[in-house]
Amino acid sequence: MNQLKVGIVQQDCGLDREANIEKSLDGIANCAKIGANIVVLPELHTSLYFCQSEDVEKFDWAQSIPGKDTIRFGAIAKQHGVVLVTSIFEKRAPGLYHNTAVVFEKDGSIAGTYRKMHIPDDPAYYEKFYFTPGDQGFLPIRTSVGKLGVLVCWDQWFPEAARLMALGGADLLIYPTAIGFESTDTPAEKKRQLDAWITIQRSHAIANGLPVVVVNRTGFEEDWTKVTRGIEFWGNSFLVGPQGEVLYQAPQNSGATKVVSINGSRTEEVRRIWPFFRDRRIDAYNGLTERYLDE
Amino acid sequence: MNQLKVGIVQQDCGLDREANIEKSLDGIANCAKIGANIVVLPELHTSLYFCQSEDVEKFDWAQSIPGKDTIRFGAIAKQHGVVLVTSIFEKRAPGLYHNTAVVFEKDGSIAGTYRKMHIPDDPAYYEKFYFTPGDQGFLPIRTSVGKLGVLVCWDQWFPEAARLMALGGADLLIYPTAIGFESTDTPAEKKRQLDAWITIQRSHAIANGLPVVVVNRTGFEEDWTKVTRGIEFWGNSFLVGPQGEVLYQAPQNSGATKVVSINGSRTEEVRRIWPFFRDRRIDAYNGLTERYLDE
Repeated sequence: MNQLKVGIVQQDCGLDREANIEKSLDGIANCAKIGANIVVLPELHTSLYFCQSEDVEKFDWAQSIPGKDTIRFGAIAKQHGVVLVTSIFEKRAPGLYHNTAVVFEKDGSIAGTYRKMHIPDDPAYYEKFYFTPGDQGFLPIRTSVGKLGVLVCWDQWFPEAARLMALGGADLLIYPTAIGFESTDTPAEKKRQLDAWITIQRSHAIANGLPVVVVNRTGFEEDWTKVTRGIEFWGNSFLVGPQGEVLYQAPQNSGATKVVSINGSRTEEVRRIWPFFRDRRIDAYNGLTERYLDE
Repeated sequence: MNQLKVGIVQQDCGLDREANIEKSLDGIANCAKIGANIVVLPELHTSLYFCQSEDVEKFDWAQSIPGKDTIRFGAIAKQHGVVLVTSIFEKRAPGLYHNTAVVFEKDGSIAGTYRKMHIPDDPAYYEKFYFTPGDQGFLPIRTSVGKLGVLVCWDQWFPEAARLMALGGADLLIYPTAIGFESTDTPAEKKRQLDAWITIQRSHAIANGLPVVVVNRTGFEEDWTKVTRGIEFWGNSFLVGPQGEVLYQAPQNSGATKVVSINGSRTEEVRRIWPFFRDRRIDAYNGLTERYLDE
């Protein structure tokens, strides 16, 4: 991984599953055409964000891995000769579902999967109902373009996840995500949230001296139960280098297909001037595996 | 800690130790006058940043705790009725020195100390020569204005340190620091470094849902050995709220005495909407106490 060309497909999604998949496939093809070695899709890009309510029928939308969807995405990875990071609602067994990133190799084979480890649950994001927390740990996925530290959405708020991927040898971190605004929040609160979301992910680049790629969905999706006013997914997919420097940031309210060059040799340079891995106090970090230390 | 008034004293330092201390005392008095409950000083504010070279004679500058300097700072804490966070080159025993933050209670007593845990060492910052890494761990210091998660400079790059203080019940994080530009770096590199430094510390606020206070020194200090071109300490001391929102940022090239109000109840609000502590995967974080996991 010396000069990696990372394609991102920021897209909106609707009720028509086939249309969502076509949008993903078009985006992948466009990125490949302009030179991408790897293409990253947003979280759960084949469907509406169904976690806005708890509905047992939505389990019908889950797919096995390998399965119908992975065959299709594998085929396009092979067709264009790109590594592909997709996001699937995985059916592992009856009553056992995961929010899973599936990484394809250029030849269309599955390079590996990552089952989302941190599962959110708050109004309009009822993920604990749908997804069993991942049981694979934080293991980078080895591909022909490097070792990918793939994490998913809520994971982005946890420095522990980023660190474990980096210690596992990840060359870059990748976050497919689906996050947006709640319409009743004030403009100031919306700004703080978006800014915090960008800042924490830039910080993972800085703390670990590696590039970070974040791909979000965009567009408004209503809550069909009318409990909330729906989610305005905030786009703003972005890529940063190993000092957290922003290389590209997508618009908020429209789709985006973009290829950005990442210079892999900067990781080595940055880690020489900021050798954080040298100085971690591993003798004093035991408390990190505790829930709380105060009482 | 509902409405905390945090005073910061961003200052430059010279060879005249007494003048440095006078500057600190004046800053504390000024902050107290405009209502501060707590005042924070930069790292090693009683002297030049002597770690620019390795010189055994500089160990003469170290002080015992309690000692001459702590008596003086304790007296001013008592005089103005403020909690005080100072930074001392600590002599613990012959051949055993630490970079230590000393926190004073309003009555002038020592509330607690924190011995810098992560010690840097790179050109112009030869701290491993001077300071034994702290052996107290990451323990917040209980004071009348709240539990203070005091960390020092290089600690700021390690999310583990911030997390452990937060798990230990810290109400806010406080970083006395001494960091600056190397004059041969390009303007672009300088911008990246300053921006990374702000970003990573804002991220500790976000990841842990608490306010963060950073106090840096300012001014140019030459390297008397002429190995480097000296350090231009970059100021920019800042305070952020629990979503990483910037409440105040000091100028780069001059001293600053400022009191900023922090609303302690926002921690509760923010942690309700972003309950990261609920979802930490403590069953899967064992690797954090390893040096590296790849080979």
